[in-house]
This record gives sequence, C-alpha cells and structure tokens, in this order.
Amino acid sequence: MEQELAELAAKVAALEEGSGWSTTINMEVFYWWCTALMFIIHAGFLAYEMGASRKKNVLASGIKNILAFAFMIPTFFFFGWWIYLAFPNGFVPDFEQGAGGIPWSDAMGPNLGDNATGIFWAAFTLFAATTASIFSGAVIERIKLSGFIILAILLGSVVWILGAAWAWHGGGWLLTEYGWHDFGAAGCVHMVAGFFALGVLLNLGPRIGKYNPDGSSNDILPHNVPMSVFGLMILIVGFFGFLGGCIIYNGTGQWTTIFGNPTTLSAVAFNTLMCFAGGIIGAWVVTRDPFWMMSGALAGIFAAASGLDVYWPPLAFLLGIGGGVIAPLVFKQLDKLGIDDAVGAVSVHGFAGLFGVLAFGIFGAGYPNGDYPDTNFLAQLIGAVSMLLLGFVPGYVGSLILKSVGLLRIPPEVEIRGMDPVKVPISAYPEGMDSNGIGVAAPAE
Amino acid sequence: MEQELAELAAKVAALEEGSGWSTTINMEVFYWWCTALMFIIHAGFLAYEMGASRKKNVLASGIKNILAFAFMIPTFFFFGWWIYLAFPNGFVPDFEQGAGGIPWSDAMGPNLGDNATGIFWAAFTLFAATTASIFSGAVIERIKLSGFIILAILLGSVVWILGAAWAWHGGGWLLTEYGWHDFGAAGCVHMVAGFFALGVLLNLGPRIGKYNPDGSSNDILPHNVPMSVFGLMILIVGFFGFLGGCIIYNGTGQWTTIFGNPTTLSAVAFNTLMCFAGGIIGAWVVTRDPFWMMSGALAGIFAAASGLDVYWPPLAFLLGIGGGVIAPLVFKQLDKLGIDDAVGAVSVHGFAGLFGVLAFGIFGAGYPNGDYPDTNFLAQLIGAVSMLLLGFVPGYVGSLILKSVGLLRIPPEVEIRGMDPVKVPISAYPEGMDSNGIGVAAPAE
Amino acid sequence: MEQELAELAAKVAALEEGSGWSTTINMEVFYWWCTALMFIIHAGFLAYEMGASRKKNVLASGIKNILAFAFMIPTFFFFGWWIYLAFPNGFVPDFEQGAGGIPWSDAMGPNLGDNATGIFWAAFTLFAATTASIFSGAVIERIKLSGFIILAILLGSVVWILGAAWAWHGGGWLLTEYGWHDFGAAGCVHMVAGFFALGVLLNLGPRIGKYNPDGSSNDILPHNVPMSVFGLMILIVGFFGFLGGCIIYNGTGQWTTIFGNPTTLSAVAFNTLMCFAGGIIGAWVVTRDPFWMMSGALAGIFAAASGLDVYWPPLAFLLGIGGGVIAPLVFKQLDKLGIDDAVGAVSVHGFAGLFGVLAFGIFGAGYPNGDYPDTNFLAQLIGAVSMLLLGFVPGYVGSLILKSVGLLRIPPEVEIRGMDPVKVPISAYPEGMDSNGIGVAAPAE
Repeated sequence: MEQELAELAAKVAALEEGSGWSTTINMEVFYWWCTALMFIIHAGFLAYEMGASRKKNVLASGIKNILAFAFMIPTFFFFGWWIYLAFPNGFVPDFEQGAGGIPWSDAMGPNLGDNATGIFWAAFTLFAATTASIFSGAVIERIKLSGFIILAILLGSVVWILGAAWAWHGGGWLLTEYGWHDFGAAGCVHMVAGFFALGVLLNLGPRIGKYNPDGSSNDILPHNVPMSVFGLMILIVGFFGFLGGCIIYNGTGQWTTIFGNPTTLSAVAFNTLMCFAGGIIGAWVVTRDPFWMMSGALAGIFAAASGLDVYWPPLAFLLGIGGGVIAPLVFKQLDKLGIDDAVGAVSVHGFAGLFGVLAFGIFGAGYPNGDYPDTNFLAQLIGAVSMLLLGFVPGYVGSLILKSVGLLRIPPEVEIRGMDPVKVPISAYPEGMDSNGIGVAAPAE
Repeated sequence: MEQELAELAAKVAALEEGSGWSTTINMEVFYWWCTALMFIIHAGFLAYEMGASRKKNVLASGIKNILAFAFMIPTFFFFGWWIYLAFPNGFVPDFEQGAGGIPWSDAMGPNLGDNATGIFWAAFTLFAATTASIFSGAVIERIKLSGFIILAILLGSVVWILGAAWAWHGGGWLLTEYGWHDFGAAGCVHMVAGFFALGVLLNLGPRIGKYNPDGSSNDILPHNVPMSVFGLMILIVGFFGFLGGCIIYNGTGQWTTIFGNPTTLSAVAFNTLMCFAGGIIGAWVVTRDPFWMMSGALAGIFAAASGLDVYWPPLAFLLGIGGGVIAPLVFKQLDKLGIDDAVGAVSVHGFAGLFGVLAFGIFGAGYPNGDYPDTNFLAQLIGAVSMLLLGFVPGYVGSLILKSVGLLRIPPEVEIRGMDPVKVPISAYPEGMDSNGIGVAAPAE
Repeated sequence: MEQELAELAAKVAALEEGSGWSTTINMEVFYWWCTALMFIIHAGFLAYEMGASRKKNVLASGIKNILAFAFMIPTFFFFGWWIYLAFPNGFVPDFEQGAGGIPWSDAMGPNLGDNATGIFWAAFTLFAATTASIFSGAVIERIKLSGFIILAILLGSVVWILGAAWAWHGGGWLLTEYGWHDFGAAGCVHMVAGFFALGVLLNLGPRIGKYNPDGSSNDILPHNVPMSVFGLMILIVGFFGFLGGCIIYNGTGQWTTIFGNPTTLSAVAFNTLMCFAGGIIGAWVVTRDPFWMMSGALAGIFAAASGLDVYWPPLAFLLGIGGGVIAPLVFKQLDKLGIDDAVGAVSVHGFAGLFGVLAFGIFGAGYPNGDYPDTNFLAQLIGAVSMLLLGFVPGYVGSLILKSVGLLRIPPEVEIRGMDPVKVPISAYPEGMDSNGIGVAAPAE
C-alpha cells in the first residue's frame, strides 16, 4: 500500500505540473488572440481614417496611420514597457520593479522560463498603438509626418503608459491610495489619447477652409463614408480583443480585473454588447448620421468601460446612450470654439471616457478593493483630472515645441493642393472610379 | 502515512477545484471569441449591404443595418433570452425554466457564481442579430426605417428565438418528440430569417423600376460589387464564430452538439471548409458572377449545416454544390414571380437552409439521440415546415399590419430621388470618386 | 484507509482523464481559431487583389482569387494531405505513413476517436490556399481562368505540401539529415509560392502596355489603393492565425515548434510585432508608398519568419527592415528584366523568404535539434535551394505546358478591352462612383 501511495503521489505531482502548464499555455493563447483582435482595431482605424480624408489626402492619411503603428512597436519595446513597470508610484521610477522591462533583460525576448512577458508586452503594445491611432484621426490633412511621428511616440510609448502605470496596474497609486477603478481603460487609453489630441489641435489649428472669416464652420466631409463606417464596425470587433486584454486570466480560478477584483468574462460580454447598442441609439437620436452612429458605438463603450465588470446590463445600456449623445454634442461645441477635430477623437475618446470614469464614481462606488480603499467618487475625480492633464499637457507642450521648430504643420500650398499629389508617389484612384463604359451589365460568356 | 494520505487528498481536492475552474474559464473564453467573430458577420453584412445598394441609398442601407443590430441587443436582453428558456415545449411558456431569463434575475448580470449566462446570452444575441441582418438585405431601398426596426425586433428577439427553443435546444419538442437534428441552425436561423423576409417582401413589393409593365425584370445592380464581395468573404470568417457557437464546450470531455450528440470540432472543420468550397463552385457553374459565388459559399454552408457534425467531408462538398446551385436558380424563379429580393436572402438563407434540413433527413437519418427518437426524415420534414411557417407567417402578418398603418414603405418620391439625399445628413461620396487631376502618378518627393 | 486510497485513486484517474480531454479540446480550439484567422488572410488577399487590378479587371481578379480558394479545399482533401504524410523522405512515398491521409481512411472525416486530423487538415488547407493566393496576385489581368486554376491546384495541393513534407514536418529530410529550421514557413510557403509565380511569369509574359518598345517600363496602377492597403492590413491580422498554426499546442507542457524545439507563444508575439514594424519602416524609407509599406510589413515578417521562436526582438526588427528594403528593390530589378509581377509576389514572398531562410543560417546557427544535427548555415542553404527549385520548376514547366495548349493567356483583344466586360456578367461599379448630385450635404430630415 505504501507503494500505491507513492505511485499515486507521483501521479498527483504530474497532474499538478500539467495543470500549471495548462494554465500558462491557455493564458498565452488567450492574450495571443487578444493581440490579434486588437490588430483589427488598426485595420479598422486605417479604413476609417482614409475614408474620413478628402480625396486629395487619402493615402497621406494612410501612411501616417501605418507609420505610427510601426514606430510604436520598437519604441514600446525599448522604453515603453519599462515605464509601465517602473512608474506605478507617480513620477519617481522604481528601478527594481522596472528591471524586467529593460530591453536587454532576460524577460525581453524568447525565454523558456517566461511564457508571460512577451504576450503581455504584445497586448500592451497594441494598446499603445491604439492611443496613437486615436490621436492620428484628429489631426489629418495638415499635420507634418515627422512631427506627427514624434508626437505619436510621445503619446503611445511614454504618456499613456505612464498613465497605465498609475491607473491600470495592480500597484498604481490611484488604486492603492484612493481606490480608483477603471476596468476598460477609459482613463489611461481613451481620456489620455483624446485630451492629448486636444492639446495638439490647439497648436496645430484648423484645416484651411474649415472656418469662415465670421467664425462659422464648414463641414469638411469624408470622401468615402461607407469605408469609414465599415472601418468603425470592424474596429469594434477589435474591441473584443481590447476588452479581453483588460482582464486577468487566472486559469484555475476566477477572472480578476487588472485591479485585483474578481469578475467574469460573462459580465463583460453582457455589458459590452449593451453599451455598444446604447451608444449607437444615442448617437442616432442626436444625429441620424451613420458616421456618428458608429462613433457613438465607441463612445458608448467608453462611457461604460470603467464598470463593464460590475454594472447591471441595463445600466450599461443607459450609460452607452449617454456616451452616444454626449460625443456628437461635445463635438459641436468644440467646433464652435474653432477646434477642428477631423474625426471627433476628442469628444468620442476624451469626453466620453471622462463621462465613463466619473459615472463609475456614482454607479460603482463602494465596491471593495481588498486592502486598498473601496471605490468612490473622489478617486474617480482625482483619476479623471490626472488622466486629463497627463494627456493634455504633453500634447500641448510637445506640439508647441514642434511648432516652434517648424515640424508641426505642412505648408499651406501643400495643404491646398493636397498631400497625396505632393508627398505620395501614387494616387488613391488613378483611373477614377467612374463606370468607364463597363457600367452596363455585359452579357455572360 | 495517514498524514501523507491526507496531504494527497488535499492536493487532489485542489486539483479537482482547479480543473473545474479551468473548464469554466476556457468555456467562457471559447464563446467570447465566438461572439467576437460573429461580430465580424455584422461588419461583413454592413459592407455587403451598402455595396449592394444603389449609390442613392448606400448610407440609408447602412443606417438600417446598424440600427437593427443596436435594437436587437436590449430587446434580446429584456425578452429574447426569456423566450428561449421558456418555450421549448411549443407555444405554452414554462415559467419555471424561463425564470433565469427574466431581466432582473440573478443570472442576467455580473454574478461571480455564474460564468455562463452572460456569454451564452451574448452568443445568442449575435445569432439574433444575424437573423435581422439576413432579413435586412432583402428589403433595402424602399422599406421605412421605423417599420423595419419593428420587424427586425419581431424576427430577432421573438420569432427566431422561439424557433431556437423548439429546434435548437436540448429539450426542444422537435428533438424530444421527433428526433430532429440541425447542428448549424439551418432551420431556426436561416430558414426562419429567409422565409420571414419572403413574408415581408410580399407586402412590401418590388422597388420602383424593378419590373416592366409586361412583367419582365430589370437588374438593379449593386453600386460597389467589390465591397459586397469582400463583405461576404469576411462574413464567412464570422461563420467560424457562428459554427463554434453551435457546439457545446464540455472541457474535460468530448464536445457535444446542442442536441446532446457527441462530436468533434475537427469534424466541423472538415465539413465547413468542404461545403464552403462546394457552394462557391456550384454557384460559379451556374452564374459566373462573383456576387453569387460568395452568396453560394453561404448557401453551401447552409446546405450542409444540419450535419456538419457527422457528414463525410465529400458529402458536405456535394451538398455545398447543391446549395450553390439551388440558391441562384431559386432566386431567378422568385424574380419571375415578381418577388424583388435585393440580395437573394430568401433563396440563399431560406431555400438553401430548407434543402439542408431535408438533406439531413436523407443522409443523416438513423443517428442516435439518446433517449429521444433517432434522427429521421419525418422529423426533418416536420421541423422544416415548422421553421418555414414560423418565419413566414409573422413576417407576412407583421408587415401587413405595418402596411395598413403606413409604416412599411417610403413614399415613391423619396424612393425615386433616393433615401440618402432625403433622409441622411451626409452623402456617401461627397466629392465623387474620380481621379480629380491626381490620377497620374505624382513624382516622389 | 485502504478504501480512502482507492477513492483517491479513482479521483486521480478521473482527473487524468479530464486533463487529457482538456488538452485535446483546447488544442482543437486553438487551431480552430488559427483556421478562422487564416480565413482573414483570404479576405485580405481578395480586397488587395481587386484593389490592385485596373478597373476593367476588378471582378475577374476577384473571381480568380475566390475560385482558387474553392478548388484548393477538395483537392487538398483528396490528395494534398496524403502527400504531406507520405513524402517526408523526398520523392519516394511512404505508403504506411500516408495511410491516414487517404480520403476514405477513418481519420479523414468525423471520428469521435480522433479530435486532431480534421483541425490539422483545416489549418494546412488554409496554408495551401495562402500559397495559391500569393501566386494569384502576380498574374492578374491576363491569365486564363482555366489555366490559372490548374496551376493553383498544382501549387497548393501538390508542390508546396511536398515542400512542407520536406521542410515543415517533424520527420522531414531537411531536418533529420541536415538540421534545417524554419519556424514560420518562409521556405515551404513563401519561397515556394514566390518562385512558382516567377516560373509562371516567365511563360505568361507581361501585360500589354507594361513595357515600351525600348524596354522601359510603365507603371500599371491599382485602381483602388485604399482598398489594397486595407486588404494588406487585415491580411496581417490573419498572420496571427498563420503563425499560431506554426506552433504545436502540447497543453500540459511547453510549446514546441513543428521541428520539435521548445518555444513559447510569447517569443513569437515579441518577434512578430517587431519584424512587422521593421518591414514597414524599411519599405517606407525606400519607397514612401503605402502599397509598398504594407507589402514591406509582409516581407518583414517573412524575413524573420524562420527564427520567430528564437530571435532577440531587436534582431527581428532589423531583419524586418531588411525584408522591407529588399522586397521593393528586388521588385525594381525584376521589372527591369521585363518580369511583370503585378503585386510584387516574387519579391515579397520569394526573395524576402529566401533572405529569411538564409539569415537564420547566420543568426540562428547552433540551435539544438535533439537527435538531429544542430541548426547550421549549410542546412539553410540546401533547404533554400530545394524550396526555390521546388517552386520554380513546376511553375515554369506547368505554365509552359499550359501555354503550348493555349490555356495560359487570354486573347489580346480581351486583355485590351478588359476581362470584366467580356467575362463577367456584372461590372464592378455600374453607376460609377461620382457624387451624382448628392455630393453636397443634404439637410437632415
């Protein structure tokens, strides 16, 4: 019987080891698909942004968007990840915690003893690229490519990830000191990117022809609305990757948020669909415009993002409606103030995100955070102000510096003629898109 | 040794608990990705339907499609899921079984003790939205938005889900009393949606200009065929989510169908690809038309859908060819009868689904169903008639009522001018899509 | 206590069985999503290839692409998979090993005792379809559909899979005899497809109007660059499925490559993003052209593909830059030689793949392969030559035969008029895409 026990003990040890591996492997798989789906966000932004440009700037917008994504990746490897690990306490780096993020550390590359760092880095890199794409849409048709790339790197590989260290980290000071909660990164991703864009727009200025001498505004229309609308819908597919990337896979135990609270993927599924639907309906009521309906879908998600883990689904629906209503209304107000945000990034990401973060302070207050303070309105307010400033100030200061050295805006003659004819070696539709005499149905062979 | 045994027992208990969690968590992950991929179906339908519209109606079609999706979600939350749970026996609700679907029940929201309801609800909501999108394409370019939304809710949050309670449920009467089998929902999703569309089309009538006074038919062509064809291909990507959502993840045991029969995902992989290929080839032989080739890919999938779990793959290929051939031929017959189905939804979903359900009665008869009758042709026939009527009657009656109160069809002057210029605040291609003097390659900078 | 032990033993046995199932089921799920995401590659290629065609050939290109996919599936079922299993030793089939791939074997269909074959077959079928799509783009606008389908089947269901048996198989002779390593199939997929295309192009000849009498080259431009650029970005989403399909899911133990070396998905995540970024930046520096930037993203991935499992991420980034630089430069050289590769498939897939395979011989030499020789430059060189010839020779000979029987190229009058008006029953943009008087913003209702 002793032998039987020993055999059984060996089997149990093997099962324990297998179970450990199984959790590790399936965790990797989960975030691998999150990363892949977040890639769809970028395909969506690319279609959206090219569609939202005028015909003379289509490919220049595409180049800008693609290149921002490309530069985000190495810069996030070389310093972005380190910032996340090192700065949960504020502005003073913790070099010990940051050590694993130094590009030559063992964790930053293939390592048979570390199945986690690469996949987490990848998911966070895609979040970084998302912030850059959010900003990218606002400034199309007049920003200089070089200045844009510098600002995109500043936003994606420095600013937002500092925000993530504060507001989207198990040891971030907003959680540990105040009891902050923001499940879906409405603060560090959407607010930071949206208000960064606002800071840049103040220095960049509106497109030529956007405002009349009397201050009234002209609509500068997307050249291909169906492409933009489709792009936004596929972008939302990508948000299943983004929101999946907001939850910790524990494998042999319940899911937790990045803040340590237990939750379920089921809860997120309920609320994601409900706030998405609310956002569309809210924006439809206000605008009847399909471009805004899909932007409203995004705004609806951000409006409920902070509490996707805990809201009762009808509440998420109502918050979604709120986001879908707020975004176009804020957009109009900003337009009246002379801020030419080409795609509404400031209102959709910045203000709907702000609304979502504060709403959690009302509808999600009192939720326990283990050893840290329970969730509360003050924490959400402090976090909201932090995220707003963390986005706005670097965007404003960075673009002011670039402006002073002539790297911010293209020359007016290029802007008037169009960036594609001047800067891009091919044109978007070289033959045009008319029917060219093959417009009638030809007989089948 | 007693202590060793106790320690081992504790380890085993921990492993058992971990294994239970692992199954739960990975089940949630599986359906999460199913839901995300089914979202792609809607991006695909959106591109497809906008492409299939004439230029004057592009955005109105898009708005209709997006809004149907948005309204499906809350209505499916408030009563759709309850219908599924309460009506497996026919028309008399089982309030006890339905209790978990009441919107204020513990299951209908974040609940750390229930990792399943939210994710199943989400997947079913996407199926519901799929039925609405199927219907949506058939009626473009003349249906009133308000009437359409009412009909879409009737289809997606009432009718199809009643069909699912009967024909896609482990306790549905078609299975328990007759031995029905329909792995991939050819009946409750595709037939119901297709014949619902047929019922509506009879009251809605053809688009102005579709038929000549002598009864002959004119082709009303998609304004952007590449966009539609691409939309259909990406839509099929989404069917990997849809078909994944048709199989029960048991985690520590073999897969089962929704009817309780054991199967493998491998079987579904074999047959999905084979019937997809058959459908393309079948439709190509008959039409040479890329729009129909991709519709044929769908028809091929529906033609084999009922038996994707059991067919020998070459049989699935042949059934796929059958679906790909049937759909365009039925479409032509319906056209001759004066039924103007703008995208062929009735033939692709309704008739290819009907073919698929009945084909299973021939090629899949005799398959065991545990305590219930083995699969057989009669069950498939009864189910097919049920699904046909369940789709057609509400579609016909619902649209008749809406017609009588003037909510079904837009005024002829709006139809002639186009819905976009009258109803939508922006236009699809405000600058046109000609080359505008940037049609020749500009020199690189 | 004996009873307790027996009970515990029973529990352990149940856990062991459950753990085995769990691994099996989650393995199936992993490759199911790989397959679904590889489907996106085809949606991407479809958009890319239609966009890259001139307006008169848009739909003919689409038909060709869709039909290649459709024919690949049954042919890969009927003989492709058998070739993979039977030919790891070279040209002499091993009938015993091949037995499981005979279409009427128990493994080739639903089988409750085999959860693996179907899902592996599906993933490999998608790889096969990828090779056909790679080739498809190079030959647009003048190849005959019938000849193209024959060549696509030859490439996808015979040639590349023979290459996979040699160079992407745990028992392939290149590994067992020489120590070959090619994680991401740069050789058997990309080189084979690229050099196959080159072989065909030599017999097919350039499009009419591509070269002037003095030998100088004219640009034949894509009719819809935004569609192509978007198609390429979404195609790269699909590469997460492709690269996932390059790694063996062991479930309760570490990942292994198809060659048996241990690795992590995290490693692949690091390097995939880094070489993608490098490829974009490299191509941007050389071309400033968004079409090439996205092709460069692909070339960057292939340039690092052989070592995605082992490279230090900054090395993958540099190799990616190399791929992104090489592809457009080689394209220009081929163009000077009179080879009209419409989308750059030869340079992007063939030459960047070649670069990647050889680069591994330098940067990845000395990596252990268990009982087989360590990785080394000679193995990579032998493999590269093998893959180059395995692609080129059948492409050249196959197309020569088709040319001699008049099945290779469409008549010049059809080419000049366009394939759509002659061969396709509908046209791409029947109304054209001008603004038609709805170009100005209409007032909201």
